[in-house]
Amino acid sequence: MASEDALTGPPVVTLLTDFGVADPYVGVMKGVILAKAPSAQVVDLTHEVPPQQALQGALLLETAWRYFPPGTVHVAVVDPGVGTARARLAISSGGHYFVGPDNGLLSSSLPDGVRGARQPGALYESRRIQLPADVSAVVIDNASLFRHPVSSTFEGRDVFAPAAAHLASGGALSDLGHRVTSIGAFPAFRAPRSGSALEGLVLHVDRFGNLITDIRPEDSPPAPSFRIAGRRLALATTYETASGPSAIVGSSGFVEIAVPNGSAARVLGAGTGDVVTVE
Amino acid sequence: MASEDALTGPPVVTLLTDFGVADPYVGVMKGVILAKAPSAQVVDLTHEVPPQQALQGALLLETAWRYFPPGTVHVAVVDPGVGTARARLAISSGGHYFVGPDNGLLSSSLPDGVRGARQPGALYESRRIQLPADVSAVVIDNASLFRHPVSSTFEGRDVFAPAAAHLASGGALSDLGHRVTSIGAFPAFRAPRSGSALEGLVLHVDRFGNLITDIRPEDSPPAPSFRIAGRRLALATTYETASGPSAIVGSSGFVEIAVPNGSAARVLGAGTGDVVTVE
Amino acid sequence: MASEDALTGPPVVTLLTDFGVADPYVGVMKGVILAKAPSAQVVDLTHEVPPQQALQGALLLETAWRYFPPGTVHVAVVDPGVGTARARLAISSGGHYFVGPDNGLLSSSLPDGVRGARQPGALYESRRIQLPADVSAVVIDNASLFRHPVSSTFEGRDVFAPAAAHLASGGALSDLGHRVTSIGAFPAFRAPRSGSALEGLVLHVDRFGNLITDIRPEDSPPAPSFRIAGRRLALATTYETASGPSAIVGSSGFVEIAVPNGSAARVLGAGTGDVVTVE
Repeated sequence: MASEDALTGPPVVTLLTDFGVADPYVGVMKGVILAKAPSAQVVDLTHEVPPQQALQGALLLETAWRYFPPGTVHVAVVDPGVGTARARLAISSGGHYFVGPDNGLLSSSLPDGVRGARQPGALYESRRIQLPADVSAVVIDNASLFRHPVSSTFEGRDVFAPAAAHLASGGALSDLGHRVTSIGAFPAFRAPRSGSALEGLVLHVDRFGNLITDIRPEDSPPAPSFRIAGRRLALATTYETASGPSAIVGSSGFVEIAVPNGSAARVLGAGTGDVVTVE
Repeated sequence: MASEDALTGPPVVTLLTDFGVADPYVGVMKGVILAKAPSAQVVDLTHEVPPQQALQGALLLETAWRYFPPGTVHVAVVDPGVGTARARLAISSGGHYFVGPDNGLLSSSLPDGVRGARQPGALYESRRIQLPADVSAVVIDNASLFRHPVSSTFEGRDVFAPAAAHLASGGALSDLGHRVTSIGAFPAFRAPRSGSALEGLVLHVDRFGNLITDIRPEDSPPAPSFRIAGRRLALATTYETASGPSAIVGSSGFVEIAVPNGSAARVLGAGTGDVVTVE
Repeated sequence: MASEDALTGPPVVTLLTDFGVADPYVGVMKGVILAKAPSAQVVDLTHEVPPQQALQGALLLETAWRYFPPGTVHVAVVDPGVGTARARLAISSGGHYFVGPDNGLLSSSLPDGVRGARQPGALYESRRIQLPADVSAVVIDNASLFRHPVSSTFEGRDVFAPAAAHLASGGALSDLGHRVTSIGAFPAFRAPRSGSALEGLVLHVDRFGNLITDIRPEDSPPAPSFRIAGRRLALATTYETASGPSAIVGSSGFVEIAVPNGSAARVLGAGTGDVVTVE
């Protein structure tokens, strides 16, 4: 538990995809990583991102990566554009590495401050964002580090896994390709103000049926009232103290709508994309 | 394979939760563990315990933990009371460690003998059990070992994972908090006698549709007959020798009701909580 | 990343089963492996093979094992005959090890050339195949290396996991049991010629709804036309360039039927076992 242990432990690689676990795609990526970085610890974040929903993938990565040790390589593949001209990125930021397609999925590698704000009434869309001075990024285009032949449908195996193994085994970011100065990113996940209210969105429904919103408790007024699906909800402290559907400060720092020992999604008939107003 | 290898191998931490794998909650716990115990091997037992069913979690943990090397730390989080006053436990028993909420989930850390018996007609309910001399337990209340801030909804990340990492990296149990002399536990999983019969319960349905009961084959009479859902079943030796629905001694030492190459749950219309009588 | 790293890294064991992940069966196998081979890295290929479908298991193993480092031990358990007289195999082939039941599941340990061809109009059936000179196989019958007692329903835990741990920790194949000269194997996964056409089969539907066939692009004529479920489809280069249902060369070297950002299985109403004709 000494801090030098944390620095000298095996390198950690996380994987977040929409591949599911019914097929060996994820296992194959791990094989490629272990063949190049044999001591790596490979950890699944999730492989159940809804197919091709880069926005949800970006949110889930944001809620997870900071809990890993410095130097961890986070590989995210939710990639409707696989095999097309969209860039492949490797990023160094906040003492961690990020590897994946340039479609907003890696947004959380950027500080909130540079990602800009969502406008009221708008959804989250990926936009070009200039990198701040303490973030480095390259387009992965050094084909000598790819697995060959490169499949047009599985760059996770042939491009992203080898790039992650390169970083995990101490290779330089700059070996992977050419430096870029901007990447695609979603606005910061933070409900915008609309008049005197906050206009939140449900971004994700978790396995318990909790509705994860983009509302930050620190933006909410004292004694806030939450409106969703025609209901008015108050703020509770824990799932157990809640009686009926309630808002609660979730573990990731966002307000969640929850039902004690039940599913808020089912009880309220609400889901991803629904509006939650805070007054 | 030398035995000292087993003693000097990396520490093993197992995880059993009701978190599912669609969200990164489990991955986040692994990140926290690896940040404090970088060489740990973290193994999933299952994350599909039915939400908040501590009884099924306790059964599944009981069927699994003895197969791991001595010194393994078993973390179990099925915790409807998260964020409330229920205690958080760390237990040393049988050469293994157990970490989780005090709601019966860690029952199998206690020998069957001290857990008492279920009464005929009753279900399994967690009760206070005095610890025998060879079991040590503490309430995890040393906040200096927590992740801060501690979320009221995700103690798996902020309390249990750090405690497991502490133990996995050789830290003392007594560092984690104050010694306790009793914990909550379910009665031993063992069908009670009711007149001349055994009164078993279906405790779990596995992925093949096999019905796992609390009937121990050693308690059954010779040539037993099993009654469930209005059917009478005989004992078979393997899934393949069974013809039609049959009882079989399952791999965990409990009698299971199985259908060859089929689902007993579906064929019999039976499930968790159903009674199985043995005569 | 030096090649000697790959040789001196921790041993890798992969697992492919039909056990699902709702039960701790897979975790228990990992416990048994780590108890005997503490430094092993255990990687899941998949545990969602449809129950008892050795053919699909064999296909998924074939698409995965070559991506792992030399010396990897691949354990596959899809085993309707568990507990009966069917043999248990350990095989050394192509620098990897394979462990599992003798029911065709380990077919991909054999080169295509010796596995023979499927006949037009026929399905894939496992047959006895003589081993070529560079493949060694034993029947696992050295009970001193088993876990005892051996369950008749969970040889994955008591026979296959200990055998894999033995190989992963450097033990000899010949320690495990008696040499055999033939094993059960499916014909090579390769659509046969039927007149002027190829007669392909859908072998698997992946999580995206892509239909994985046994058609090899190198066997197809130039500008091929694919017929399935009464539709005629052309060949596309990437999922994104496809417009509507299309054939595409999948990442495993087989032709897949795909729908851009959709499910071919749903759009075409097609699935495993359906015929795909190439002209």
